[in-house]
Amino acid sequence: MSTFGKHFRVTTYGESHCRSVGCIVDGVPPGLALSEKDIQPQLTRRRPGQSALTTPRNEADAVAIQSGIEDGVTLGTPIGMVVLNKDHRPKDYSETDIYPRPSHADYTYVEKYGVKASSGGGRSSARETIGRVAAGAIADKVLKLAHGIEIVAFVSGVGNILMDRDPSNPEFIDLLSTISRQEVDAAGPIRCPDESIADKMVKLVETCRDNHDSVGGVVTCVIRNVPIGLGEPVFDKFEAELAHAMMSIPATKGFEIGSGFAGTAMLGSKHNDAFIAGNDGRLRTKTNYSGGIQGGISNGENIYFSVAFKPPATISKPQDTASYQGVDGTLAARGRHDPNVVPRAVPIVEAMASIVVLDLLLAQNARSSLAGLAE
Amino acid sequence: MSTFGKHFRVTTYGESHCRSVGCIVDGVPPGLALSEKDIQPQLTRRRPGQSALTTPRNEADAVAIQSGIEDGVTLGTPIGMVVLNKDHRPKDYSETDIYPRPSHADYTYVEKYGVKASSGGGRSSARETIGRVAAGAIADKVLKLAHGIEIVAFVSGVGNILMDRDPSNPEFIDLLSTISRQEVDAAGPIRCPDESIADKMVKLVETCRDNHDSVGGVVTCVIRNVPIGLGEPVFDKFEAELAHAMMSIPATKGFEIGSGFAGTAMLGSKHNDAFIAGNDGRLRTKTNYSGGIQGGISNGENIYFSVAFKPPATISKPQDTASYQGVDGTLAARGRHDPNVVPRAVPIVEAMASIVVLDLLLAQNARSSLAGLAE
Amino acid sequence: MSTFGKHFRVTTYGESHCRSVGCIVDGVPPGLALSEKDIQPQLTRRRPGQSALTTPRNEADAVAIQSGIEDGVTLGTPIGMVVLNKDHRPKDYSETDIYPRPSHADYTYVEKYGVKASSGGGRSSARETIGRVAAGAIADKVLKLAHGIEIVAFVSGVGNILMDRDPSNPEFIDLLSTISRQEVDAAGPIRCPDESIADKMVKLVETCRDNHDSVGGVVTCVIRNVPIGLGEPVFDKFEAELAHAMMSIPATKGFEIGSGFAGTAMLGSKHNDAFIAGNDGRLRTKTNYSGGIQGGISNGENIYFSVAFKPPATISKPQDTASYQGVDGTLAARGRHDPNVVPRAVPIVEAMASIVVLDLLLAQNARSSLAGLAE
Amino acid sequence: MSTFGKHFRVTTYGESHCRSVGCIVDGVPPGLALSEKDIQPQLTRRRPGQSALTTPRNEADAVAIQSGIEDGVTLGTPIGMVVLNKDHRPKDYSETDIYPRPSHADYTYVEKYGVKASSGGGRSSARETIGRVAAGAIADKVLKLAHGIEIVAFVSGVGNILMDRDPSNPEFIDLLSTISRQEVDAAGPIRCPDESIADKMVKLVETCRDNHDSVGGVVTCVIRNVPIGLGEPVFDKFEAELAHAMMSIPATKGFEIGSGFAGTAMLGSKHNDAFIAGNDGRLRTKTNYSGGIQGGISNGENIYFSVAFKPPATISKPQDTASYQGVDGTLAARGRHDPNVVPRAVPIVEAMASIVVLDLLLAQNARSSLAGLAE
Repeated sequence: MSTFGKHFRVTTYGESHCRSVGCIVDGVPPGLALSEKDIQPQLTRRRPGQSALTTPRNEADAVAIQSGIEDGVTLGTPIGMVVLNKDHRPKDYSETDIYPRPSHADYTYVEKYGVKASSGGGRSSARETIGRVAAGAIADKVLKLAHGIEIVAFVSGVGNILMDRDPSNPEFIDLLSTISRQEVDAAGPIRCPDESIADKMVKLVETCRDNHDSVGGVVTCVIRNVPIGLGEPVFDKFEAELAHAMMSIPATKGFEIGSGFAGTAMLGSKHNDAFIAGNDGRLRTKTNYSGGIQGGISNGENIYFSVAFKPPATISKPQDTASYQGVDGTLAARGRHDPNVVPRAVPIVEAMASIVVLDLLLAQNARSSLAGLAE
Repeated sequence: MSTFGKHFRVTTYGESHCRSVGCIVDGVPPGLALSEKDIQPQLTRRRPGQSALTTPRNEADAVAIQSGIEDGVTLGTPIGMVVLNKDHRPKDYSETDIYPRPSHADYTYVEKYGVKASSGGGRSSARETIGRVAAGAIADKVLKLAHGIEIVAFVSGVGNILMDRDPSNPEFIDLLSTISRQEVDAAGPIRCPDESIADKMVKLVETCRDNHDSVGGVVTCVIRNVPIGLGEPVFDKFEAELAHAMMSIPATKGFEIGSGFAGTAMLGSKHNDAFIAGNDGRLRTKTNYSGGIQGGISNGENIYFSVAFKPPATISKPQDTASYQGVDGTLAARGRHDPNVVPRAVPIVEAMASIVVLDLLLAQNARSSLAGLAE
Repeated sequence: MSTFGKHFRVTTYGESHCRSVGCIVDGVPPGLALSEKDIQPQLTRRRPGQSALTTPRNEADAVAIQSGIEDGVTLGTPIGMVVLNKDHRPKDYSETDIYPRPSHADYTYVEKYGVKASSGGGRSSARETIGRVAAGAIADKVLKLAHGIEIVAFVSGVGNILMDRDPSNPEFIDLLSTISRQEVDAAGPIRCPDESIADKMVKLVETCRDNHDSVGGVVTCVIRNVPIGLGEPVFDKFEAELAHAMMSIPATKGFEIGSGFAGTAMLGSKHNDAFIAGNDGRLRTKTNYSGGIQGGISNGENIYFSVAFKPPATISKPQDTASYQGVDGTLAARGRHDPNVVPRAVPIVEAMASIVVLDLLLAQNARSSLAGLAE
Repeated sequence: MSTFGKHFRVTTYGESHCRSVGCIVDGVPPGLALSEKDIQPQLTRRRPGQSALTTPRNEADAVAIQSGIEDGVTLGTPIGMVVLNKDHRPKDYSETDIYPRPSHADYTYVEKYGVKASSGGGRSSARETIGRVAAGAIADKVLKLAHGIEIVAFVSGVGNILMDRDPSNPEFIDLLSTISRQEVDAAGPIRCPDESIADKMVKLVETCRDNHDSVGGVVTCVIRNVPIGLGEPVFDKFEAELAHAMMSIPATKGFEIGSGFAGTAMLGSKHNDAFIAGNDGRLRTKTNYSGGIQGGISNGENIYFSVAFKPPATISKPQDTASYQGVDGTLAARGRHDPNVVPRAVPIVEAMASIVVLDLLLAQNARSSLAGLAE
């Protein structure tokens, strides 16, 4: 449904063509300095129309906090947030009344709910993610202040142009340790921190745009400074919660943590992360194929994972398909569409990661508060 | 924590060295013919020691139903199930008292809970999965009777030996439509239905065993005959629930649905699954890159996904690592260990998939029961 | 926290002095004709300033639906609703900065959250209940259309003036079978359907008002036409869910179902509700001490329960108390306050009852959909 | 369903005539010394056959811990517990195959689940409460060690023989501050600490027994030393969680906190609990009509509440009723039955209270751990 998280919990509402989209964030720690200024930047990074590569709409997406804050400080009560929809009249989608768009949610929404929304798959629109990003920005601030936790996502693949994200590659491991959101944005519109690869990605996206086609990509994300001990086995392991969160983002097709699918081809003797003494008295690992999680619990190393995004289903070329009634026909191309969405997915991936980490941190803090009681 | 599912819900308990492992399954539909005979086969497929390739222990793992059934029929009340541990005395793990095993959960469990269990990471043992498999067997039966749903998993990769699981490959798509559990088991100990590939996998595992090393693999699973409309956007999309379930299985490193990571390199015009008229009056898709899910909701096509399993962390060769106190040393090799666990993961993947599907089916049935109320 | 319900689920936000209050209602059946007109009447019944007996403020409390509806029909997606706060600047509560108001939530909120809101106990304000009433109005409509379910609450006690609500009393039982919301409102400002008792109640409230004091009361509620079989033992029995819902309403001190506390004094041979044949082929009970629920499950008889509300803590006379610093002093009286809130509690009780019934109906419909599967 | 609690969570299984009853307790703090010896005493207080007043069966009800403990210390993993059923063959209930027992759950269970269990309402048997009591005993120990919390219940009413539980009565308030479980048990089989009243209660129960009838009663419970700040508004207020927990116990008809229903007749000026300086620097209240909870949050005073139990439905005299087919007839009396169950309800009420308090304590500790973060 539309609620995520147990202790830190976001509930979202809103389609593309209704009055507003928004969310209620429950479980926000009290006494936190917070205002729209903390939230708007990630919303702005998320919105479309940021570059020539993406759809040239310009939605302001200004968030208005409704509740839960007084004198700039959180009360510990739920924070309601609203972002108005600019044009909330249903658009003229007459053709999509006849044809369900291929690989869109039009057909499955009609079958599931029995109601055809003017916008096709009502909540499958990317606009739904605004509530996630707003909630994630709050979690971000809490994590930063509490433990200096840093969460940074970037584009590591577009089409067949891929960064080398092999954990044996010291450059990749080094990048994970140092990359910042500022650097990601500074790297250009594609949000890939490797300049030469980014150039190729941009060219590929431009080619797709010129061909009225689209292409997918991969977002990689690192979470630094996570305390040891987060994750709630056996069903709510850290990677399971991350996978749930990521695979709930529209257009995702895959998730991998640490060595991922490539790790399946490795020998155990190489894949095992040997322990070494750390500077601060705690154990570290020499390598990090585990991706910072062992047995579903954070081990203090950098947590990193990647998410696969399919090519956007909306393309600017006609498509042979069938109508709702099963009659063959052609869905005509209309307007211009994003040939690639992964740069905009970056803040969404960060947001969902923030929510997961804060939720697990609260769970572990609850446990720790009563651990080892002496008789 | 140790509960999974909302409407059909399993709660598990048990470590390797305690009295028993087991589970409580809540939300079981009443009036279902059910006995241990429905549950034991999958438990038997799960247990170790089934072939020369795996650890030569022979645990009977006989399940005893405690409650929820009378005269062979479910009452609709919770079903308690218990599987005794054969030897519930903690083993002699003296060396692992000194060294946390690399890439095991020993270290993270101690850090998280502050208690060192004799078995290392208490609940990270594969024995924990017995409760999942028992619950999944019940879900299996319900799904089979209600909609003829079939869930079949198989090994599609061991090390670098991989089946071609490209959805453009008609043989792969055909396999997904026809493969049965019987065929998977008949294909040999590695549970890969492609005989020539299976042979290579077996040889690789044998080499690893002889080298006292281990290797990972991939399990692919198909779910057939799923009704259209299952999945609970926006956070509990079908693929998000599957990902959560799969990534909660020990040793998993990745999840992909449909085209997965390879799909990110495709063009939208190819990746889009065009609609065609189906024989039964409903729409079908010409291709199935979506993996049977669009917008987080099943579209009636086969749902298929793959799960990456890392090489087992326990290997039969000495490992240079550090002690809990941060002193460098060598963890000696002990006994024989499974060089590869993916064949045994097959019924676990099936079980978690069954639980997810039944849970989502109940959610959608609840909704449908009150949809479209006339004034 | 601020979410109630599992299948039909309301999440609320908002304090007295923030921008708005509102809610997100998830799990609304799709295909339901719905607009603000369905929701406003109950909000209007809830708002203060409706009569000379209550606070002479006049808040419009106009609800604006944000999402989840198109062309006047629900989409099955979450319905966001917002009610603006007229004056969202924090009021001048300088004296309550010094003294926590006795039997208010000022003190406990500060201790729990560590933040002092200008309005004292931020979310303990009755304004919080707007979201509940809005959600309940949706549930009301669903229940009415699906099963003709009617939920009617009324004031059965103010101070020591009490209706006879003994289930042995045929007039009371008859009232439960027939009373409508229209009749309750027509009975006058106190919302007690017994005219002679209502008069006495009004006089008592007026006396309290003139004495700058307050008085409590009892709200009784009946739920008619509930299908047999609702309620989820063992922890989520029908009466347990109702009790949870009712005791979460501000100022409640007690809950009783059927014979209630008085029933404890009865003999089993009288208290037992003997079965008789009903007209429609199903069993009925001769008496209804059970209150329509047996073993936590509805039996098809009228469900009725009562809720105790304490005298409002805010009174218009000075009170000797202590400051936050523990210094004895006097909290001066300020302004006029409601001497009695039970008439306004009527729609809140109805709302929470509606939410509970719909949630349990969805749970049971899910179960029934897969019950008795034939092999 | 059969799970209660969010952070500290119990899931139960079992009917009267199956192999065993039991539970899984999740979220147990790690590092706690725990064995069957901590759990058995409350189970023993719960079991039937303890005195001449109750059914003369003698069930041993010996609990066996299955998991989650090693070397006498909790691991932080789920604790499975099993209590064998002595005679798990369904009894000869042939007559109740024809007649649903009045005010029992036989009829509603058949209607809800569509399956007739030999024991009538399968999970409505008091035997279901064993899992609750076992889980509560663990919570008890945690609360005692963490904060010296004491939870003591006693019988305050049988039939029309009632202790004076008016919070204006200093003897009652004093009793709440001092009563211990030992004193409750020492007071005799009826578990009422007022000796002269207890004698009358015993006589009433004996009369009922001799008349083959039954009678109800009231259990009052006090929770001492609860930290300020527990309770999760707005829906999971402390009293709402308690009410949910208590009204889920079989045979309950009402719940009241603090002044309860009697409080509705009071004036606000008297009912308000004025603050005074406490010895330890924190605020106390002069009176305690609030019952230790204000705004849904504990204020540090004693929390006390009462629970109404109806007369047992099973009586030893024939009852005129109707068969499942709606044919009038007489259900014959069989065997001897408990004329009153409230003494046995005492440990069940304590158990559910313990679970609620620990669950809320963990929630608040999680919040506090991140409150007031400095920038």
